[in-house]
Formats: sequence, C-alpha cells, structure tokens
Amino acid sequence: MKLCRYGEPGREKPGMVDATGAIRDLSGVVADITGATLDDATLAKLRALDPASLPKVDGTPRFGAPVAGSSKFIAIGLNYSDHAKESNMAIPAEPVVFSKAVSCIQGPNDVVVLPKGSVKGDWEVELAFVIGKRARSVSEADALDHVAGYMVCNDVSERAWQLEHGPTWDKGKGFDTFGPIGPWLVTRDEVPDPQNLSMWLDVNGRRFQTGNTSTMIFSVRKLVAYTSFLFTLEPGDIVTTGTPPGVGMGVKPDPVFLKAGDVMRLGIDGLGEQTQKVTGG
Amino acid sequence: MKLCRYGEPGREKPGMVDATGAIRDLSGVVADITGATLDDATLAKLRALDPASLPKVDGTPRFGAPVAGSSKFIAIGLNYSDHAKESNMAIPAEPVVFSKAVSCIQGPNDVVVLPKGSVKGDWEVELAFVIGKRARSVSEADALDHVAGYMVCNDVSERAWQLEHGPTWDKGKGFDTFGPIGPWLVTRDEVPDPQNLSMWLDVNGRRFQTGNTSTMIFSVRKLVAYTSFLFTLEPGDIVTTGTPPGVGMGVKPDPVFLKAGDVMRLGIDGLGEQTQKVTGG
Repeated sequence: MKLCRYGEPGREKPGMVDATGAIRDLSGVVADITGATLDDATLAKLRALDPASLPKVDGTPRFGAPVAGSSKFIAIGLNYSDHAKESNMAIPAEPVVFSKAVSCIQGPNDVVVLPKGSVKGDWEVELAFVIGKRARSVSEADALDHVAGYMVCNDVSERAWQLEHGPTWDKGKGFDTFGPIGPWLVTRDEVPDPQNLSMWLDVNGRRFQTGNTSTMIFSVRKLVAYTSFLFTLEPGDIVTTGTPPGVGMGVKPDPVFLKAGDVMRLGIDGLGEQTQKVTGG
Repeated sequence: MKLCRYGEPGREKPGMVDATGAIRDLSGVVADITGATLDDATLAKLRALDPASLPKVDGTPRFGAPVAGSSKFIAIGLNYSDHAKESNMAIPAEPVVFSKAVSCIQGPNDVVVLPKGSVKGDWEVELAFVIGKRARSVSEADALDHVAGYMVCNDVSERAWQLEHGPTWDKGKGFDTFGPIGPWLVTRDEVPDPQNLSMWLDVNGRRFQTGNTSTMIFSVRKLVAYTSFLFTLEPGDIVTTGTPPGVGMGVKPDPVFLKAGDVMRLGIDGLGEQTQKVTGG
C-alpha cells in the first residue's frame, strides 16, 4: 500500500495511490496520515479498502510529506562503506546518529532553499523508515514489526555548516526545506527485503549517486534496535538510514556543490521519485 | 507569571502558581500549556486573570514538564568559558548546537533512569527558554520578543555515549528521562535580565555546580538569533543554554558519575528547584 498526503502545504489530505498510479482520497476514512494512523490495525483497515470505492483525485496535485506530526527525524551517517571512504572518514564501528530538525520536513518535490551565504549545499539519496509501533530497546528479531513502511528521503546537507562550525553535525542538516520525504510511504508488506533496493540521484541530469541498500553497514533491523536503545521511537518518527557513494563533497578532483537553479532528481526501487529545484544561497 | 502543568504523567492539567506558591487550575481557561498558548495575546489574557478566582489545587501534586508538545529541544554546549575549560575543550568561536530527543522531556522531579550499562551519567543545571512566537532568522534586537519564558533544565548526559560512540553528541543526551524541565515556565516579563541569574546543583547534598548566567559566552539574545538561522523555531520549542562549571566529568582528580540511589537537586534564581532520584545503570 502506498500512502500519501496531497494538496497545498499545510492543508494536505490523506490519500492512497492505486494500481494505476492515481490518488484515491482517504479523507473520509482517516483525518490524516500521522503516527496515530500507522498502527497495524489501522493499516490493515486501510488495506482492506477497495481503492475503486474511494474518490479519485483529479489532476496532479502536489505531494506533501507522506507522514505528518513526526516527533523525531533521526539520521544515520556514513552507513555505506564506500560513502565513508569518499568522505575521508573511517568506517564506523557502530551507527553514527544525528538529528534533523522536524521543521525541515517537506514534500518530495518542494523547492530546496539554500541558507543565506551557503556555498556547500549537497545531496544524499536515502532509504528512510517510519515507525508504526512505539519502539523502546527492541531486539533485532522484533525490529521490523515496529516499522510501518519506507520512503525516499533526500538528506540535504550543508557541508560547511555540518563540518566547519563545531563538533556536532546538526547545524548543517536541519535548515528549512532540507528534509524532502516521499512521494509515498510504502507499507512494509510491499517491501519484503529493505536490504535489496537500488537507488540513484541525478543533478541537472548527471548521475551522481548509484547504490543499493545491500551494501549498508548497519541494516534497517539493526538501526531500529540501536536507535530504540538511545531514544523511545514513537509512531510517526522517521529514521533515514544513510547515503551511498556519490555526494557532491566526494567528487574528484574537485567537489561539486549545489547552486541556485540546480535540479535534483532521485529515487529508490518501488518507493517512487523526487524532483527538487534549488534556490537561495 | 509562573505557568505549570500538574498531575499524573500524560494526564497533566494546566496551572498557574500564585503569589503564595499555591497552584491555581487553569483547565477552565486553556486546554493545556503548549506552543499554541504561549503567544503574547494568550499570555496577556492569562496574566489578566485574578488567581484568586481560579480553583485552588489541594495537596502537592506532581509537576509535569511546564510545556507540552515541543517539536524541538535544542541544546547549546560549552557555553560557559569555565565549563569548556573543565571539559578540556576549546572555548567555542560560535555556539555548539546539538539536539535532545523530545521523548526525553519529563517533569522536574521525576526519576532519572540511567540506560542499561551506563557508568558515566552526569548532570548539567541550565537555563532553558521556550519560544512563544515563531522565529526564523530573527535579529538579536528582536530576539527576546520570541521568547515566552524561562525555566530550569537538567541537561542530563551520559558521557560515554556522548563522547565515545562516534563524532556526534546526540546519543548521550536524549535517553528517556534525560530532560527534566520546570517546575514552572516563568514568563519573560518576570525575568527582566536573563543574563544575571544564579544557579546551582547538588548531588547527595554536596554542592557541585555554582554559576551565574552573567558568564555565558553566548547570551540568550544571541542564541535565539543564531539557532533561528539554522532552524525555524516554533512556539513551544525549547532551547537549553549550556551549563556552568561543576559537572561530574570535570571533578579533579577523578570524575564523579551518577549511580543508582543518587539524588540531584538544582535550581535557578526565581525559576524554582528540581529534585531527581537516580535509578538504572
């Protein structure tokens, strides 16, 4: 099942994408897609609906973030060995954990605005998962039961603010617009193996990132267990799992950074695509 | 005005502390104390009430966190020059910013639970402020207009998880129970100078921290401006501003860390006191 939120920013309605790719309106069934609608019982109820019985949405509305009201947006760094190498950082012995401000979350195709003076904007295509059931120190064996589904995330980063302004990373990761997610939340029953998903990212039509979640250092299962020891993960919370090689910072001989006018396109097998224009700087 | 939330965890009611120290029930006036009730108009409406006209709460109920529903809990590191020195870290040229998971927020006197295996739990008495009006790249001149009020925060920390598990700090700062705030949110009109507040912290009756916000490196005004460039600060968001000298990690010749059975007491002039028992580890 592909869940989405569609419409103007701040006024999104819940929807479901049917087999033809059309959006079916869910607002007669649930008020919104939030942590409160991602429990197994509610998802089973939605899955039991006949999409043809739901109002078909005309046109091509904007997609919003496919989940609203997330209380945490946790990110994992250096989780693909090749990406750690291109960043000149050691392969971590345990997951690198940082935070993206929830205020940076936006729709998958909304404009990315570089902060004033930014000259080191960068991209990171990532598999993100959304918690469906509260997770507190869960075991790896039980971990995936706590995941409602998966989605594409662009972990937009400003490398100067991430790496040159003190010992922590959060500064360069949470600027407004730096968290495009979606277009859909694909429920876990449709992603039987989250560790075998191909992903890619282009800037201005040039392919920069090509990867597959099979080369992750720490699997989704491990990340649920690890992060749920550090924090209670609430329904609706998002964890984005790190990026494969090909970020702008790692391009040889000279890094490539985002500038106003650039266009990013990115996608993951079965989870859809995103397109973002870049402004600001 | 001193706003509070009182009652059992998850079922707190909004209240106001009157001149005698008694709690007056505000639940007939506002549903809760959240970002939505911290705008200037609502605060003015509450301030205009005669406390004697509100129901007096009997007994000594538990205090919850004085604000609910915060979307961000941002923390500043090394913001007192003497504390940076005791931590063997350089005095920062700009604020050190990290994140505490909002799931760690709890009442001021709730038990602090060290995570399994923890041997380096530590304390940090801090002045925290709460945003009342959305702040996005605000100037220092306008900064305090965006602050609803101030409160005590214990930025409980696990130094091994903060400093020995990778390049970021968030792991050691967000464990459940690591964010006691309150007992009250004191509105900014009652804190004419946030840069002249004395603060202290005892563990088991021994004074460890003594400080005053007059020795902060980056003032509240600067921190609002700085952090609101990095993220949009929403009403209800919390920023805790760093700790003065005297944390356990800095004790000479040997550091002192928390263990089950310890009791922390801490307070700030005019903002009240907190007491936490420690368990776990």
